[in-house]
Amino acid sequence: MSKGITSQKDNYATWYTDVIIKSGLADYGPVKGTMVIKPYGYELWENIKSALDKMLKDSGHVNAYFPLFIPKSFLASEAKHVEGFAKECAVVTHHRLRTTEDGQGVEVDPESKLEEEVIVRPTSETVIWAMYKKWIQSYRDLPLLINQWANVVRWEMRTRLFLRTTEFLWQEGHTAHETNEEAEQETLNILSFYQNLAEDYLAIPVLTGIKTDAEKFAGAEKTYSIEAMMGDKRALQAGTSHNLGQNFAKAFDVTFQDRENKEEFVFATSWGVSTRLVGGVVMAHGDDNGLVLPPKIAPIQVIIIPIAKTDADKETVMAHVNDIVSQCLKKGIRIKVDDSNNSPGFKFNEWELKGVPIRLEIGVRDVSNREVVLARRDSGHKQSVKLDKLLKSIQNLLDEIQKNILHKATDFRDKNTYKVKSYKEFKDIINKTGGFIRCGWDGSEETETAIKNETKATIRCIPFDSNPKGMKCVYSGKDALYEVVFAKAY
Amino acid sequence: MSKGITSQKDNYATWYTDVIIKSGLADYGPVKGTMVIKPYGYELWENIKSALDKMLKDSGHVNAYFPLFIPKSFLASEAKHVEGFAKECAVVTHHRLRTTEDGQGVEVDPESKLEEEVIVRPTSETVIWAMYKKWIQSYRDLPLLINQWANVVRWEMRTRLFLRTTEFLWQEGHTAHETNEEAEQETLNILSFYQNLAEDYLAIPVLTGIKTDAEKFAGAEKTYSIEAMMGDKRALQAGTSHNLGQNFAKAFDVTFQDRENKEEFVFATSWGVSTRLVGGVVMAHGDDNGLVLPPKIAPIQVIIIPIAKTDADKETVMAHVNDIVSQCLKKGIRIKVDDSNNSPGFKFNEWELKGVPIRLEIGVRDVSNREVVLARRDSGHKQSVKLDKLLKSIQNLLDEIQKNILHKATDFRDKNTYKVKSYKEFKDIINKTGGFIRCGWDGSEETETAIKNETKATIRCIPFDSNPKGMKCVYSGKDALYEVVFAKAY
Repeated sequence: MSKGITSQKDNYATWYTDVIIKSGLADYGPVKGTMVIKPYGYELWENIKSALDKMLKDSGHVNAYFPLFIPKSFLASEAKHVEGFAKECAVVTHHRLRTTEDGQGVEVDPESKLEEEVIVRPTSETVIWAMYKKWIQSYRDLPLLINQWANVVRWEMRTRLFLRTTEFLWQEGHTAHETNEEAEQETLNILSFYQNLAEDYLAIPVLTGIKTDAEKFAGAEKTYSIEAMMGDKRALQAGTSHNLGQNFAKAFDVTFQDRENKEEFVFATSWGVSTRLVGGVVMAHGDDNGLVLPPKIAPIQVIIIPIAKTDADKETVMAHVNDIVSQCLKKGIRIKVDDSNNSPGFKFNEWELKGVPIRLEIGVRDVSNREVVLARRDSGHKQSVKLDKLLKSIQNLLDEIQKNILHKATDFRDKNTYKVKSYKEFKDIINKTGGFIRCGWDGSEETETAIKNETKATIRCIPFDSNPKGMKCVYSGKDALYEVVFAKAY
Repeated sequence: MSKGITSQKDNYATWYTDVIIKSGLADYGPVKGTMVIKPYGYELWENIKSALDKMLKDSGHVNAYFPLFIPKSFLASEAKHVEGFAKECAVVTHHRLRTTEDGQGVEVDPESKLEEEVIVRPTSETVIWAMYKKWIQSYRDLPLLINQWANVVRWEMRTRLFLRTTEFLWQEGHTAHETNEEAEQETLNILSFYQNLAEDYLAIPVLTGIKTDAEKFAGAEKTYSIEAMMGDKRALQAGTSHNLGQNFAKAFDVTFQDRENKEEFVFATSWGVSTRLVGGVVMAHGDDNGLVLPPKIAPIQVIIIPIAKTDADKETVMAHVNDIVSQCLKKGIRIKVDDSNNSPGFKFNEWELKGVPIRLEIGVRDVSNREVVLARRDSGHKQSVKLDKLLKSIQNLLDEIQKNILHKATDFRDKNTYKVKSYKEFKDIINKTGGFIRCGWDGSEETETAIKNETKATIRCIPFDSNPKGMKCVYSGKDALYEVVFAKAY
């Protein structure tokens, strides 16, 4: 391919990396497993972030910032939590460098060894609950609805841009409540925000449901998630919301005086989405020509390609271009002009690769006809639009593209979701066709593990619309306790 | 004092910490030297951040995100840079924890030692220039105007909330240019944004100027800064903008093909402001009753205290309160109601402590008179305002308070700035009165060091309006090369 992008068919993983690098979303950082989020990728993340931040603030959540460093001892307080995932983390042991004897380099000063090592946060439950112990005394201090936008570190061996990197950006909400009911309600509310974010902004349809015990967050009572299907039919866990019960409150001894004047442990939730969502957008919508960005989060919604050869033509065209730009900016449309010296063909390719929803072409003939051409990235469809109706046309088209992208992704997911009755069918689909499988599960961890070991497919969730009545477990043949969704996942 | 705040007169440093803790801006984190930015403080930071972010974006800068971790070897590449300040930093040496043998705790797994230690960024020049080497080939790739909002770590021994903490939040801009002139222009443009941010948003007047060689950033050719006077007459360096020349480009071998087809090293700038600004706001405007926040950045601009004893009264008052709130929100005024069960006196104290610019009192009698009382935090002045003119009055008052706070701070600074001719005068002021001293300096580092050692005062900057003509050096008596500003600084 002229763009240097491997096709999805040839190698989906390479296609993914190619698109991210070539479109300028991200690059590899110098330390293994780290990533640089380039301006185009960061702006995409900022748009995602601000949509969610608004939902959170409108519902009474507030942002705060907790320290990057956690005392090692804190991680010992919630044993399950560490056992579950907090082991692969960055450990700070020293606090000073010194110049080497030859004066040519730097080395760690052994004199600067810390008394207690500190951990770079893999998630902040422990440090936050240590603070909540200071802040919460009475039911009057509750609920505490705090969110943090931050970087976290998990020392990953196999990394992949946006999907799994040593360091990533995310938001982590940590709330404290008087009752379990309230905590449960919060957990579900947040899940609905995540669903809303995925579907209405990222144009990615998601399944919502609860995780099995084997798949839930270490330290949680219940973990809910949103699960999306990527272009290669694998699942992406795109956000999780945990009801932590009183686990962290007990580990950090956080009690409050309730309305009956009794001491009670606080109920907790935590929840997060990360820059992984950017990877989700790439894989849910991208094609062999590059990114396909949903208008609501696209850094650039309309790219103008002026087409003119002579200086006189350029002048005529640019006068119109400037007018279009200023009209669009006034309406909040994110529009940009590519007036570089590259050829139109090069520019078409470039902005297609970057996934800009609408390309606006305008040449001298268009100007004299008082029209322009609008080309859609999602369908490739081109149409001429009169200048006096341009603004309205662009707004309508952006809406239409947003809907169409979601529609296409939903269609794709539904077509690749199977209800199976036999384990043979199950294995055929997982190994050959790929996709989501809805089937009965007997509820035992043995079955879950056996299927995982044999097929690499995991239970993504027990969907809210699960209806196991009359179903048999696809593996054991026993009566199904749950209807679940299996898939290979990122 | 009933609020539990030490008075400024008794102990300024304790007053500072008391105000921050009691007003809910921040708290101490569990690891020594770390800080938790609480929701009220974080919202203040968000408001500061969004004002500057807009200036940066409007002037063509883009945000990106670079890794937290820097290979140790990178820090050896720019020797002056490390020598200058990058030594006290957090060093990651291991990447895994394991459960201790007794199963009760966690310990560092010695098997997980890293081949090369990584450093938690104290600033990102090195990692960013390692990336720029990949991204910059030709003059067509320039200028590169990248900014990052991030956390950084400097292992400080003596810490102070917001002013000096092991970890802090900041923005760091890193730009690349074709020529030194362009880099110099960028450095100065940014300084003007910082001045604008400080004066127009934070209501803190600042001196602008260039740092002496002894005080400039390690690795920079020139460092410019904005310098503010705090309530105890000390200086706070509130932002710096560096012209790095070709130092980092040479250290990381970043060249570009210029317009004449020649290979040339890239010219660079870097610049930053941090959460230190929050400390600046506290100290520039605060008084013995707590914070005094400039309306433009105050998380809450108006606090409504409904005053009613009976339920019937409450109902009458709250109907008006709700109407006021919805009117104000529509106009973008950040307004909040304190309808807690605390006494009016308690509430007055509380919101005074939190520095809310306007307190709106409304009781039954006010309602029947169709008026409310507005009390200003900055002057304590109270006035009755008719309900039908309320919105306009609030808007005007917010503007007036913003201006008045800046005016007061400017007045205070000017009154405490001295022109001195003798070193005796100099010492008297520095040791007894406190304040800024404008005087002649012979330009020698010996003089600068001698004064610093003898008085602890440093040259804050050579201000842009420096005029040494006919001046003598306050220390050596030689002809002054510069007119400079000395002060004790944070």
